[in-house]
Amino acid sequence: MKAIKAEILSIGNELLAGITINTNAAYIAKQLHSIGIEVQRITVIPDQTEEILQALAGAQQRAQVVICTGGLGPTPDDITKQALCRFFDVPLEFEPTVFEDVQRFLNHRRISLNQANREQAVIPKCDLVLHNHRGTAPGLYFKRHNTHFFFLPGVPGEVRHLMQKDVLALLAEFYRLKPITTRLLRTTGIPESRLIDKIGDLLEQYRQFRLAFLPRFRGVDLRFTLPQDAEQERKTFEEFVASVKNRLQKYIFTEEEKELEEALGEILKGKGLTLSVAESFTGGLLGDLITNVPGSSAYFLGGAVTYSNASKMQLLGVKQQTLQTFGAVSQETVLEMARGVQNLFKSDCAIATTGIAGPGGATAQKPVGLCYIAARFKDKERVKKFQFGADRIMNKQRGAIAGLELLRRLILNIE
Amino acid sequence: MKAIKAEILSIGNELLAGITINTNAAYIAKQLHSIGIEVQRITVIPDQTEEILQALAGAQQRAQVVICTGGLGPTPDDITKQALCRFFDVPLEFEPTVFEDVQRFLNHRRISLNQANREQAVIPKCDLVLHNHRGTAPGLYFKRHNTHFFFLPGVPGEVRHLMQKDVLALLAEFYRLKPITTRLLRTTGIPESRLIDKIGDLLEQYRQFRLAFLPRFRGVDLRFTLPQDAEQERKTFEEFVASVKNRLQKYIFTEEEKELEEALGEILKGKGLTLSVAESFTGGLLGDLITNVPGSSAYFLGGAVTYSNASKMQLLGVKQQTLQTFGAVSQETVLEMARGVQNLFKSDCAIATTGIAGPGGATAQKPVGLCYIAARFKDKERVKKFQFGADRIMNKQRGAIAGLELLRRLILNIE
Repeated sequence: MKAIKAEILSIGNELLAGITINTNAAYIAKQLHSIGIEVQRITVIPDQTEEILQALAGAQQRAQVVICTGGLGPTPDDITKQALCRFFDVPLEFEPTVFEDVQRFLNHRRISLNQANREQAVIPKCDLVLHNHRGTAPGLYFKRHNTHFFFLPGVPGEVRHLMQKDVLALLAEFYRLKPITTRLLRTTGIPESRLIDKIGDLLEQYRQFRLAFLPRFRGVDLRFTLPQDAEQERKTFEEFVASVKNRLQKYIFTEEEKELEEALGEILKGKGLTLSVAESFTGGLLGDLITNVPGSSAYFLGGAVTYSNASKMQLLGVKQQTLQTFGAVSQETVLEMARGVQNLFKSDCAIATTGIAGPGGATAQKPVGLCYIAARFKDKERVKKFQFGADRIMNKQRGAIAGLELLRRLILNIE
Repeated sequence: MKAIKAEILSIGNELLAGITINTNAAYIAKQLHSIGIEVQRITVIPDQTEEILQALAGAQQRAQVVICTGGLGPTPDDITKQALCRFFDVPLEFEPTVFEDVQRFLNHRRISLNQANREQAVIPKCDLVLHNHRGTAPGLYFKRHNTHFFFLPGVPGEVRHLMQKDVLALLAEFYRLKPITTRLLRTTGIPESRLIDKIGDLLEQYRQFRLAFLPRFRGVDLRFTLPQDAEQERKTFEEFVASVKNRLQKYIFTEEEKELEEALGEILKGKGLTLSVAESFTGGLLGDLITNVPGSSAYFLGGAVTYSNASKMQLLGVKQQTLQTFGAVSQETVLEMARGVQNLFKSDCAIATTGIAGPGGATAQKPVGLCYIAARFKDKERVKKFQFGADRIMNKQRGAIAGLELLRRLILNIE
């Protein structure tokens, strides 16, 4: 079967001015990929009629599926509707079922209807209305020649809603799709070039398969793809995945679409363990990541963000002498923080961070990016020193990830 | 002066598969905008030679500046270099100054050189090498006809580094640029459609100026633009800005490119006040946001993440009776949390959050998204009830922002 080609068209001056990051395009691409449709191009264009018309025409020539976001809101700078009327040669019409959606949506939030809201029910006459339960602008569907066009509002929650409710189901129906096979190995704690060194011979040996290296600040993902038309090679493909996995074992924290905090959460939950954190370097980020996981209250008891020396002593029982002798940024202090918070919350496990996130606070002996991290699992403990970079936000992120990983390896008794 | 048109070309299968979000494009667009160069189009294409050649040719026709990211790394799936050789009709060459950069970079990190690293010094013969101090792949510059081409690696930190060090300065020099005038009003706590209601008449009255509404989950930004060629209208433009500002006063937390946590931080620092936080609903996110601000240790003393009832009582002194009578998610509890943490850290100000972030934990009386937030400024306090939505991560974000804003308004005695 020949691959179905899709394009994403993102309309919005705010995207071109760099004020908004195009998370919608990534989300849509991922969803399409999951049902075997490959996105060949993503184009971001301004709220300008001519640009929209030109981009739609180009996409129609190249792709069988075009998904377009943005430009359907209530503000005066949205001109997409008019452009659609011209492109598809249809009139604007008041659509009563959309007006009902808008009324229901606003009633539920006890917001009264205004003129801008009413105008959202006036839409280009399309082949199918995608009713929006998360906002006031509907999605629109058109079929022209061999291309399916979907127009969605620009708000991320509404894009997700309409993709899940309508777009994916319609496409699966149109094309009778089966998913392509992919495998994911998600690593942390090893840079991309070292990974390549470790598995270079395997890449050579199994060169018929595509393996993508996807560096994220949290680590490097390895994604293997077995195309829909290569079913007969499945056994060799699985061999390839298994060989890479075997080679990189200790760096792999999951083979699923999940983050380290989720993987660690499952380990804790599976073993009935509880966790607390003591944060200086990470300032709350560790707690934030851990509590991003639904159901984390089952194992996460809480944390202490101790940004001052006084609070390190008072809340965590770090000794004044330790602070004076070794400083707040030291192996000794971070170990006392971990013990202190474990004791304070009576938790089975603990993570502690201290360091110099920057840009200020450095000394001759202690440069920006220096960080100590400790983990405790019952009465076992590990401590590790890191030298991160100059960027404060990145340093906090890397510290938090390193803390989660240190505890994961301690619990699983890896290296 | 006619606007200089730019295009951004992002190369990478990981962007088209939706695995990586295109933050580079947003960053580059914003930087170009700041020196008066308008991005007309952003295109994301796969790591495929033909697609790259076609996209470069198209961009060259339409734009005077083309900035291209991705495809210059050490992994086998990067084929950009070969494509550049074909497009610009130049050979691959070993470039000794780049090899020195790579060696210096790796030495500094005490990483030994491998074959992949060596290959990074083999580059298409370009008009200018942009030396990279943050990574091993250099940037490349070509001038062809009237178009300036810049090729940057795909790692966000390296893109920022090369944009700041080379690209912006070169463009400013080529085009002798002066910045265009923009004004920003950053609001929070009011939805986009209400904003339009409040200033609809002004939008009509000053319709010659462009005002963009930029909804972010943290609030709505209003961005006014006075084009380079409209200098004679500056007085009327300033009137427009002042009228809008006057109308929306209490929702505006800054007129600069800064976040609420930064604006609040400046207020605290200016008044010599200290802050602590007690987090249940937000799980550490408040502390994280506050400590994202460089120098926040001057006013932020720390926080308690109290995810369990026991920790609310033990650390913050919330009364058992309060928890039994009103529940952990209640006005009474959040006020005791705020008082408790203020007392624990001896801080001038405090913020506390409690609620049901979801998806679990709801009861008949307390649905997912219910949240109570309290702020204290010395002995004054405010408490506010919110009903957020179904998304856990969004709920935490909205709760954290609402907490910062509640304290900001309390300190400034707004409404």
